Amino acid sequence: MSQTPTQVEMHPERWGDPAKAAPLPENVRGLIGLVFETTDTPATPAATLPPPAIDAALLDELGEAVGVEHVLTDDETRRRRTRGKSTPDLLRARAGDLADAPDAVVRPGSHEEVAAVLAWAVQHHVAVVPFGGGTCVTGGLAARRDGYAGLVSLDLVRMKRLLAVDHHSMTAVLEPGLRGPEAEALLAAEGLTLGHYPQSWEFASIGGFAATRSSGQSSAGYGRFDALVVGLRVATPRGEVALGSAPANAAGPDLRQLFLGSEGAFGVITAVTVRVRALPERKTYDGWRWPSFEAGAEAMRILAQAGLLPTVLRLSDEAETGINLARPDEIGGEGSGGCLMIAGYEGTPEAVEAKRSAVGAVLAGLGGTDLGEEPGRSWAHGRFEAPYLRDSLLDAGVLVETLETATFWANRDRLYTGVKEALEQSLGEGAMVLCHISHVYETGCSLYFTVAQQAAADPLAQWLPAKAAANDAIVAAGATITHHHAVGTDHQPWLVHEIGVLGASVLRAVKRDLDPTDILNPGVLVP
Amino acid sequence: MSQTPTQVEMHPERWGDPAKAAPLPENVRGLIGLVFETTDTPATPAATLPPPAIDAALLDELGEAVGVEHVLTDDETRRRRTRGKSTPDLLRARAGDLADAPDAVVRPGSHEEVAAVLAWAVQHHVAVVPFGGGTCVTGGLAARRDGYAGLVSLDLVRMKRLLAVDHHSMTAVLEPGLRGPEAEALLAAEGLTLGHYPQSWEFASIGGFAATRSSGQSSAGYGRFDALVVGLRVATPRGEVALGSAPANAAGPDLRQLFLGSEGAFGVITAVTVRVRALPERKTYDGWRWPSFEAGAEAMRILAQAGLLPTVLRLSDEAETGINLARPDEIGGEGSGGCLMIAGYEGTPEAVEAKRSAVGAVLAGLGGTDLGEEPGRSWAHGRFEAPYLRDSLLDAGVLVETLETATFWANRDRLYTGVKEALEQSLGEGAMVLCHISHVYETGCSLYFTVAQQAAADPLAQWLPAKAAANDAIVAAGATITHHHAVGTDHQPWLVHEIGVLGASVLRAVKRDLDPTDILNPGVLVP
Repeated sequence: MSQTPTQVEMHPERWGDPAKAAPLPENVRGLIGLVFETTDTPATPAATLPPPAIDAALLDELGEAVGVEHVLTDDETRRRRTRGKSTPDLLRARAGDLADAPDAVVRPGSHEEVAAVLAWAVQHHVAVVPFGGGTCVTGGLAARRDGYAGLVSLDLVRMKRLLAVDHHSMTAVLEPGLRGPEAEALLAAEGLTLGHYPQSWEFASIGGFAATRSSGQSSAGYGRFDALVVGLRVATPRGEVALGSAPANAAGPDLRQLFLGSEGAFGVITAVTVRVRALPERKTYDGWRWPSFEAGAEAMRILAQAGLLPTVLRLSDEAETGINLARPDEIGGEGSGGCLMIAGYEGTPEAVEAKRSAVGAVLAGLGGTDLGEEPGRSWAHGRFEAPYLRDSLLDAGVLVETLETATFWANRDRLYTGVKEALEQSLGEGAMVLCHISHVYETGCSLYFTVAQQAAADPLAQWLPAKAAANDAIVAAGATITHHHAVGTDHQPWLVHEIGVLGASVLRAVKRDLDPTDILNPGVLVP
Repeated sequence: MSQTPTQVEMHPERWGDPAKAAPLPENVRGLIGLVFETTDTPATPAATLPPPAIDAALLDELGEAVGVEHVLTDDETRRRRTRGKSTPDLLRARAGDLADAPDAVVRPGSHEEVAAVLAWAVQHHVAVVPFGGGTCVTGGLAARRDGYAGLVSLDLVRMKRLLAVDHHSMTAVLEPGLRGPEAEALLAAEGLTLGHYPQSWEFASIGGFAATRSSGQSSAGYGRFDALVVGLRVATPRGEVALGSAPANAAGPDLRQLFLGSEGAFGVITAVTVRVRALPERKTYDGWRWPSFEAGAEAMRILAQAGLLPTVLRLSDEAETGINLARPDEIGGEGSGGCLMIAGYEGTPEAVEAKRSAVGAVLAGLGGTDLGEEPGRSWAHGRFEAPYLRDSLLDAGVLVETLETATFWANRDRLYTGVKEALEQSLGEGAMVLCHISHVYETGCSLYFTVAQQAAADPLAQWLPAKAAANDAIVAAGATITHHHAVGTDHQPWLVHEIGVLGASVLRAVKRDLDPTDILNPGVLVP
């Protein structure tokens, strides 16, 4: 149990498995070359780490709590626990900026050891940044460190157990450090699945899914992560919180929903009880073509309100359909215009066929064109690849980033137009703004934007105003600042527009109560 | 808008419409007489109200805020705003105990007027009890008044508007004072339904549904009330909170879920944005017989986990099936043993038939006996009648009360047995303990108990230890102290066992933040 599982560590300045890094595919280079003047960027300058700010004697104390071998201060480990994987994070890392590096990385192996780390941090006023998969794209790993004796990364990499399975209630208790594929593998051995597949799935962790209210590509069928959680165990500086007495209750406010989305600011999630489902025997993903984004979105709305949602349902706008970012190896291939929808079905063969037939009838009746399984296979094949493409584009001198929001159906077009225009205006002529809908509800949907533009001399100074303009447009449209990427530090200035001055005050009150000395992720989430 | 709508006022000492009060039906008398020695109770003694504790000059100030005609201090109005409708509430009212009567009843007509009442109450340190339908069964209307200049009932009876309808997003904005039938009538005129039908539906209010996390008889099809809410407006002593930027988001903790279930202790809900559905064209309720409670419950679990839930799904245990409380006029009629399940379907004729056929195939395959539509019609006919029967039983000297809980499937039998034994042991020989499951989830279900016993000389002293024993058994089984009746004052001592010392601390922190002088429902909910 004290053994640290080996796992592929992400490249500190790129997404994902370093072995998968690749130069920009020629076809993409060709297409992008039509729009941007691409350049080959030089190799990353050697980054220098500031020396650890925490006294060795204090770290020895920490080592007594978790084992000296689990308190790491080597440059490589600190570098790999610096920030997350937003484009600004990558740009800063590429520029050799390691100002947010932790002084040490501590790896507790149990709830009790997490509690011991927090007690140590309170005693010595050290800031603590809980670290799961490190895939955050909203600055949630860049806590404030001024005024603290130091900053440690609390790495959950040793907490990777499936603690319990209840086949009768169809629940499982998972430790927070399990990455998506690890959790699915443990559940698959029991004939079960969680069915939570965000794009970050290969590296993101169970604790992170809960702490950020993640939503996966199969959210229409399996539900958002917050809908999958029936219980939580949390270590806070003031002690343990354990919630989850029933699937639902009326015993006051649902406090589970206060810790879901708490981004490590209220406590460290040490176990998550999730609803699970039987492993699907069959997975089928179909492509449909729509004459316009509007027509496809209307079809999604009608399906959702008819209670006929497939497991996966996504729709690219005209621009994204033209580019097909989901399938880098096909970029620049022939397109036949319109908007591509993917409708995927998972379950028993009978359930898949029944739903597919019912959904197909509705879509065909609404004017959709059935493209068969090839576009679906293509999407499924490339579903986790886009972040690698981003690295290759950055290498080639293209600024690329994503952002997302959600709103009610009646407000969808206003939000789409507002955000698109804000981004195009900020990034200037030649900017590419692509969009898709990937999470659908009875009352509304998400909008996920991908943006590309020729990188300026200072791409960070180029992107940050564009992101701010998009956030302003989101707030002006009355939509949410984030549908599934959390608040972090990047969205924090806009949060108060969404939850109001008193909503922010409530978050501060809860924070003060559970973390009175403000050691947990200071500066993250709480306005 | 300043006109107060006329509405049927509930009898201050009984459930519901006074015109519907009736003596105990002969058939019930016959059956109950076999078990209990029934008596005809004397008429209620004349109750005397303590004089209003609030100075007339202060009430004049309040009148300036909402209109003098909306500040009422007459005995009859105060009496009708005293406590809720639990059996202990009725027993206290019948015994002439009006100690919890408000000094005045104030009827604000808008969010702004609610805010003005709260400002007045803060200024003069007057306790405020928000009042919707008055159907609470957990002591949520019996706030603490010691240490206050007085106590007012904040009656939402004038706030009964449908503020907005969005047919595209399928949402509606409702004011909190709308009773169930009023809300449904306004929505029906738009071709819509909320589909929320708790047993209290005829009198309970939209604000109350939200403040108590209500769950209705059609929860399997339409969802619990908390699942129907997409937005909230709340007046707090510190100002307004408005939430609901999207169907779902990752912008930190879901603060909507902090106000849902807040029982008037954090603020007064002044508008609720709900998800709505098309009015069902067809409603069909079928009866099924199962050889045992266990077999029927297993069938429910299998349906829920197969994604095949009907709109209504309920199952009585052997004892309740024998009595059939849902149909008072049939009590004592012939029964053929086993356990009765009602499976109801609402929607388009095609959707009803498709679901009914799929569910029917599963139930028949599991050993259920299809009883056709007659038991379903019977249940639908009597679904709101049980509380009237309780009054008639109390009149006849029978103590009768209900309580409910929920747990995960694997824990269902342990919870059922534990609560049943606790009640039987406390109430002694001859006690009747009936149970049904009426809310079903993939991971678990609710258990709703109805208890009857010959009333002792002091029925309150007879019931309270039984209720405490049941609560202890619920806590011992790790279940929730309430699935859909909220915490109030009655469940409050047990809440800390469910949410822990730190969970309780968080509730206090939120309370302090939003209501720093503790004027809102003092003593209710927050431990």
